[in-house]
Amino acid sequence: MRSMPPAHPFDDDKLKEECGVFGVIGVADAASFLALGLHALQHRGQEAAGMVTHDAEAGFCSARRMGYVRDNFTSREVLDTLPGTLGIGHVRYSTSGHKGQTAIRDVQPFFGEFSMGGAAVAHNGNLTNAATLRRELIERGSIFQSSSDTECIIHLMARSMGRSIPDRMEEALRKCEGAFSIVAMTRTKLLGCRDPMGVRPLVLGRLGDGWVLSSETCALDIVGAEFVREIEPGEMVVITPDGVESSFPFKTRASRFCIFEHVYFSRPDSILDGRSVYETRRQIGVELAREAPVEADLVCPVPDSGTPAAIGFSHESGIPYGMGIIRNQYMGRTFIEPSEQIRNMGVRLKLNVNRALIRGKRVILVDDSVVRGTTSRKIKEMILDAGAAEVHFRIASPPTAWPCFYGVDTPEREKLLASHMSEEEMRRHLDVDSLKFISLDGLYRAVGVSEGRDPKAPRYCDACFSGDYPVAPADMIEKGFRLKDAAA
Amino acid sequence: MRSMPPAHPFDDDKLKEECGVFGVIGVADAASFLALGLHALQHRGQEAAGMVTHDAEAGFCSARRMGYVRDNFTSREVLDTLPGTLGIGHVRYSTSGHKGQTAIRDVQPFFGEFSMGGAAVAHNGNLTNAATLRRELIERGSIFQSSSDTECIIHLMARSMGRSIPDRMEEALRKCEGAFSIVAMTRTKLLGCRDPMGVRPLVLGRLGDGWVLSSETCALDIVGAEFVREIEPGEMVVITPDGVESSFPFKTRASRFCIFEHVYFSRPDSILDGRSVYETRRQIGVELAREAPVEADLVCPVPDSGTPAAIGFSHESGIPYGMGIIRNQYMGRTFIEPSEQIRNMGVRLKLNVNRALIRGKRVILVDDSVVRGTTSRKIKEMILDAGAAEVHFRIASPPTAWPCFYGVDTPEREKLLASHMSEEEMRRHLDVDSLKFISLDGLYRAVGVSEGRDPKAPRYCDACFSGDYPVAPADMIEKGFRLKDAAA
Amino acid sequence: MRSMPPAHPFDDDKLKEECGVFGVIGVADAASFLALGLHALQHRGQEAAGMVTHDAEAGFCSARRMGYVRDNFTSREVLDTLPGTLGIGHVRYSTSGHKGQTAIRDVQPFFGEFSMGGAAVAHNGNLTNAATLRRELIERGSIFQSSSDTECIIHLMARSMGRSIPDRMEEALRKCEGAFSIVAMTRTKLLGCRDPMGVRPLVLGRLGDGWVLSSETCALDIVGAEFVREIEPGEMVVITPDGVESSFPFKTRASRFCIFEHVYFSRPDSILDGRSVYETRRQIGVELAREAPVEADLVCPVPDSGTPAAIGFSHESGIPYGMGIIRNQYMGRTFIEPSEQIRNMGVRLKLNVNRALIRGKRVILVDDSVVRGTTSRKIKEMILDAGAAEVHFRIASPPTAWPCFYGVDTPEREKLLASHMSEEEMRRHLDVDSLKFISLDGLYRAVGVSEGRDPKAPRYCDACFSGDYPVAPADMIEKGFRLKDAAA
Amino acid sequence: MRSMPPAHPFDDDKLKEECGVFGVIGVADAASFLALGLHALQHRGQEAAGMVTHDAEAGFCSARRMGYVRDNFTSREVLDTLPGTLGIGHVRYSTSGHKGQTAIRDVQPFFGEFSMGGAAVAHNGNLTNAATLRRELIERGSIFQSSSDTECIIHLMARSMGRSIPDRMEEALRKCEGAFSIVAMTRTKLLGCRDPMGVRPLVLGRLGDGWVLSSETCALDIVGAEFVREIEPGEMVVITPDGVESSFPFKTRASRFCIFEHVYFSRPDSILDGRSVYETRRQIGVELAREAPVEADLVCPVPDSGTPAAIGFSHESGIPYGMGIIRNQYMGRTFIEPSEQIRNMGVRLKLNVNRALIRGKRVILVDDSVVRGTTSRKIKEMILDAGAAEVHFRIASPPTAWPCFYGVDTPEREKLLASHMSEEEMRRHLDVDSLKFISLDGLYRAVGVSEGRDPKAPRYCDACFSGDYPVAPADMIEKGFRLKDAAA
Repeated sequence: MRSMPPAHPFDDDKLKEECGVFGVIGVADAASFLALGLHALQHRGQEAAGMVTHDAEAGFCSARRMGYVRDNFTSREVLDTLPGTLGIGHVRYSTSGHKGQTAIRDVQPFFGEFSMGGAAVAHNGNLTNAATLRRELIERGSIFQSSSDTECIIHLMARSMGRSIPDRMEEALRKCEGAFSIVAMTRTKLLGCRDPMGVRPLVLGRLGDGWVLSSETCALDIVGAEFVREIEPGEMVVITPDGVESSFPFKTRASRFCIFEHVYFSRPDSILDGRSVYETRRQIGVELAREAPVEADLVCPVPDSGTPAAIGFSHESGIPYGMGIIRNQYMGRTFIEPSEQIRNMGVRLKLNVNRALIRGKRVILVDDSVVRGTTSRKIKEMILDAGAAEVHFRIASPPTAWPCFYGVDTPEREKLLASHMSEEEMRRHLDVDSLKFISLDGLYRAVGVSEGRDPKAPRYCDACFSGDYPVAPADMIEKGFRLKDAAA
Repeated sequence: MRSMPPAHPFDDDKLKEECGVFGVIGVADAASFLALGLHALQHRGQEAAGMVTHDAEAGFCSARRMGYVRDNFTSREVLDTLPGTLGIGHVRYSTSGHKGQTAIRDVQPFFGEFSMGGAAVAHNGNLTNAATLRRELIERGSIFQSSSDTECIIHLMARSMGRSIPDRMEEALRKCEGAFSIVAMTRTKLLGCRDPMGVRPLVLGRLGDGWVLSSETCALDIVGAEFVREIEPGEMVVITPDGVESSFPFKTRASRFCIFEHVYFSRPDSILDGRSVYETRRQIGVELAREAPVEADLVCPVPDSGTPAAIGFSHESGIPYGMGIIRNQYMGRTFIEPSEQIRNMGVRLKLNVNRALIRGKRVILVDDSVVRGTTSRKIKEMILDAGAAEVHFRIASPPTAWPCFYGVDTPEREKLLASHMSEEEMRRHLDVDSLKFISLDGLYRAVGVSEGRDPKAPRYCDACFSGDYPVAPADMIEKGFRLKDAAA
Repeated sequence: MRSMPPAHPFDDDKLKEECGVFGVIGVADAASFLALGLHALQHRGQEAAGMVTHDAEAGFCSARRMGYVRDNFTSREVLDTLPGTLGIGHVRYSTSGHKGQTAIRDVQPFFGEFSMGGAAVAHNGNLTNAATLRRELIERGSIFQSSSDTECIIHLMARSMGRSIPDRMEEALRKCEGAFSIVAMTRTKLLGCRDPMGVRPLVLGRLGDGWVLSSETCALDIVGAEFVREIEPGEMVVITPDGVESSFPFKTRASRFCIFEHVYFSRPDSILDGRSVYETRRQIGVELAREAPVEADLVCPVPDSGTPAAIGFSHESGIPYGMGIIRNQYMGRTFIEPSEQIRNMGVRLKLNVNRALIRGKRVILVDDSVVRGTTSRKIKEMILDAGAAEVHFRIASPPTAWPCFYGVDTPEREKLLASHMSEEEMRRHLDVDSLKFISLDGLYRAVGVSEGRDPKAPRYCDACFSGDYPVAPADMIEKGFRLKDAAA
Repeated sequence: MRSMPPAHPFDDDKLKEECGVFGVIGVADAASFLALGLHALQHRGQEAAGMVTHDAEAGFCSARRMGYVRDNFTSREVLDTLPGTLGIGHVRYSTSGHKGQTAIRDVQPFFGEFSMGGAAVAHNGNLTNAATLRRELIERGSIFQSSSDTECIIHLMARSMGRSIPDRMEEALRKCEGAFSIVAMTRTKLLGCRDPMGVRPLVLGRLGDGWVLSSETCALDIVGAEFVREIEPGEMVVITPDGVESSFPFKTRASRFCIFEHVYFSRPDSILDGRSVYETRRQIGVELAREAPVEADLVCPVPDSGTPAAIGFSHESGIPYGMGIIRNQYMGRTFIEPSEQIRNMGVRLKLNVNRALIRGKRVILVDDSVVRGTTSRKIKEMILDAGAAEVHFRIASPPTAWPCFYGVDTPEREKLLASHMSEEEMRRHLDVDSLKFISLDGLYRAVGVSEGRDPKAPRYCDACFSGDYPVAPADMIEKGFRLKDAAA
């Protein structure tokens, strides 16, 4: 099978969102809309994609494939196997499950046949008590087909005594802890649900006479749907072509939307939480320029995710903006290294330094985050090789010091550079002239909380920066993970 | 076979470079370097790639594949079929040959076995007398295997009485008219040659103890080679690991490098003709801002090729730069249109408007060129749909009014918007608030000719803008093409 | 995907065995033996094959593929994903499940993770109460992943309170009705079981220090295993490298081995029920020659399954044996019919008449069975076209008048020619000079029951000929199937 | 790519025919007929197949693929790329060219564009002066694309001064030595030609209002064409829908048809040289029984090619015929050997001994030929392992002691067992109770020459048995091959 080119040039040194979900009801040829919607959400999961539709005659139909939506779900041949006016879809990286080797059986949506009919479920997030739930279900005779936490939901639904599928889903989700934004379907209904803290996004759109649920608004744009509203934290919606029924079946909690969705995961053209992602990122650049100014000749983004912050930094600082690093649009990562070794070959495959622009300049590199620091180091080397006079890193997020357990793939804590180094230690490690991260307060200001972060009741989930986990990660604690405040 | 996603979002409305060439001698595992070099030149031809190497034991080895370098030439399995320390490669769009359906037999390099040994040839450019040459060769008993003009060269070499392969190549090329930058190889030598006007680029690099020939310098960077110099117009080089022999076998002519290489074809991180492509494009933006200023709130590039000019325009005009159009990095063009039709779906698959940024603003869109105008119209519609107050196009090249016959795929003259419309007519056709192209003089200033274009002896080939063809396109004239000055 | 050529030339007009099973324990590289064993059993199921192995380090490993064993399970790459000294495998046609479109999820072995560890199950036969079992299991919260009856067994095991997996399998199978020859495995044990009537075969072999279970002895031969004995009807064996534990957990019944295994399903080089299949078939030919002699010039087998009976018929009758029909060894069934239509093209793709041999002769065609009669008719036409003087059919089985519900794919009763025609009516329908089937008594004599069939206690299951079903097909009766003796 | 299963179980120890040719004119949808015809000739070449058709609108169209006809040329999708009422096709093993790794460029038909239009050529046979021709052509500037001797013909045609393509083909073939049966085509004509000795077969058939040329009559049968006559040795035919023009452009020679076509290459249902192949083979068995009788219990063919001779042997000797060796119809040759080694595993994959039949018997094994003897040895071992009392080999051809240079793939002379062993030495080498080959005279009698072989003017080419080469193999002699009578 051909190697999948990475979409972000430094995917291996980034946190990765694990999933995107999309659902549609009340439109002819639902599968075509699913394909478009999932294509627009591809940045949320590139390893695999799946769809389920329902058609009166053909019943439930599904297709699950490894690889990109555009490579698997664009032929008439495939879409014709997915008839119906109602369907849900999922793009997947892989968070739980076996990392790096997503099996096709782990690809969502998951499907279950119940006595009152079938249901399919697609999930963005992560259940923090999935291991416990799985153990209990197996003891009672459930047979798991995948390694995914999401499968617990469908087994809980199968065992529920609820009379309707929405009732069963409600009952099942009440047993689940952690982060979940779910789209699901029965033969006639589209369901949506968000966990009480609303960690992951989920929005509702109007598409002609039908309805759409999507992780992000950029997928509404591509199908030509109108943005209606966000699904609220803790809300469950049951949608038919005739309308949307809303309920709040869970115990109320303060909402804690993931702040990293603003920093990196979501697409810049999406509106999250009422705010333009692009504008937030640009504003982070403005804040960074205020918090950590430096004399220099050029503000240069690390492509592509650093671009909006670099534009903001340049605007605020007055230092010219320029493309000092050119991304190869035909990226690959699997080239054979020639026997005469090439310095930083992995990075060269993805980008090249614009030598004529960089030479002799004091360069500010704006990047979205530093995870392991491996890529930052290589970029610095290439910039210096090209003759830069000074290299200054400005990072559009605070130091990433803690893993995420709510649906993001993060390295183990010890592999996060910021887990064991101060900012100055990181600067020395990267060997650059200066390195500055935006402060947590600065980040909160950039997302519109003008007073900064309230440590007693933070408006966002920022556990990856702060170690302040809004839901205790039960399964991980059982495996030995130690919370920040855990006494030695 | 899976559909190849386009690399540029609007490929179908751009002129297309047809080829890139790369050669290497004197390094272990030449094929790995070829793969890297061709990968860096992929923007010059995305339909197919081919390589030939020579190894004392295995003889000449070749591989030719449809599709991207990264998808076909990165496995050990393939590279192991290409042993040797000497090789040449080619990436191809398709200019002559059957358009749109490149057959594998049209994929270069071409190979011929002569009595003194084999030779392989790869060609960037176009022979303007290829049809005549082909006709004569067939009459004498040559059998053509492809529809490519390049095959003439190898047949002319086969029939030459020259005692060595370089002699035969020299003799063959003297019969060829038009544009050619060639890399070729024998069992022991790497050859390079550029037509007397030097229409297409070709550069020489040093790689450890070996040598590299490449269409652009960006491919030197990826393999870690040092830029030595450009091959001169009309120069032929014969390279062994021991050194480079140079000769000038053709009648001397004034050089006429393709100015569109600066505008669009080449990568911004390449150095062409002694100038940074990025800097030239940025400078085009500066000139445009001077020539055609306008009151507005936002300078927005049409991604990705409009970006450097937009940066220059913003810098010169003081109007803020912003990403008003977001490109989908997982582009596809083959999605099935849902039965409920989506306005401008083709464009939506490739980009989305950053609605929050655009709304209510007077927007300057900076694009590299207008060919048919179809895409410009759709982008304008999307920008207006998103609520822009005004739309102003600024184009980083003069109106493209004439086809290219020197190795660029252009639509027929009548399909070029500028062939039958004035600037104002185009503005009305696109229905925008203003539309301005850079002047030909402004473009010459941006590439460093401060006095502008000298109509009697222009420094560049600018036939696509001016209709001034430095070599008469003999085959096309025979087919009925009428030159600018041809009396009625 | 490439079309799979059929293995028997007239597959579409034959009854089809649905499955073959094979298991091995106590040998290094179990997967290689599984591949060989399943290859030897390929005639029992050509649509798909699957394997599960267990390895201390890697745990349970599985691979399931559509198509032939030789095309999917012979590369080191695939076998390396199946480590371990213990494994089971399955080849599948498809009896229950959706006909004609075996989904990969229907490919056995099936696997379940229980609280005491995992188990895999592969099944040859058919459960006649599977629909009822499935309905009950779904009501209690089991989620089915396939449309296969075999999946009931693994869910029954998951819900069993048994402390060990063999205990759970025993409990599960006691709830199952119909025909089953099962191989199964835990992390450390190989299990085998045959239903109380022993409808389908299952044999035990010794392979070095290890053990083998197989549907037929021909698969023992290919792996070099020694035949030990048949698993008895109603017997369950639990095998470790140290030995074989046997038990008889079911209520005792008279055995009723499938007589059609002798006639057609099994390979001629297998030993079934203590008898050589080849010899039995040859003996059928002898019986036929005695029961239904005819004056003729040539005895000609319908390839390949009619061959042993034709040899026996020739020997007994003294009429010369000859290859009047030549089978194309590169059979295909998907050729496009040319616009000028070819008579009997489907058959021509698979065989050709040996015209020189046939011309002017009175020909006896010996075939194994007549199902729909469509192929017989075409063969007769080809034989007559080639100039035969007379055509006499001799059929090596009694008229097939009833469908099988014990693991054989049969057309619906009304499509069976013998369900609504007498022998003479069939002769007229096929328009041949004579047509004779062996009698049921003759068939019993050929399998060694010298006194013929005892209608009160037949030694074999011969329901497809007699309509005498040893186990009532509960699910089918619920769907409206009427037994022979059912009052109108 | 998936491994191609061999068609004959012991292909690696057989001589191999290299090619089959087929052409058709004057029928709608010629490509469908080509596919059927080549499918029927698949036994003559299994590595690759190619077709060329011509259509007024589409011009010449071609498709060439590695692998079986049934896998590559049966879809509407492929056939639709081959429109027209005229076409030729070729199946290929590989005789000249690089053995074992047929490149796609070596797959025929070959095509050349001449000044008066294109022509395609497909060739069965071998040119014994191809190396000399190629050298001369290259010196004059021809560029070869393949390693095939057939390409010389098309280059000779390109250089001919003939005014029409048939004239050019005639002129070209007059320069060729060796064996050739050719089908060729222009835009409007189907051409056929056989070398003056007529070594390889070629027949003419009538198909509706059109015409067919084919290597064997079995391909006439499959398309429903009527056999008209053989093309004569030295004859050239030019066919239009209106009729067949015949000429004899070469110097007359005594015909020498390949006798091995009767023994092994051709299909038993073909008529060659006026004789039924099946009947000839049966008669060889009769002669063998007369020449080399032996007391035994069973005559057993080595499947499948030994079958007709075994039937004849049984009939003549009165010893019963039986299937002692069962061929696996799903043959494969690439199974991974389990770590516990299996004796004769390669052979087991292809066949199994019918142990119940063999045990205790004196067995006569009838095979078509002995080449290296490796397979014969293994079969003998399996027969003895199964308990045979005695093993007697009877071979349906004389000892194969000389390589063929006329289009058959033979091992080098020293690898032929009979090149350096007497019959008795071979018997001892194979370690069997007796081994007898049919005599050359006996073989001639079986093909109808009742007086046996006339050493002064043999009716057939029997060089592989006799070393009597009717045309001196010029290229091979240049390479050092020594003829039988060459003085030391």
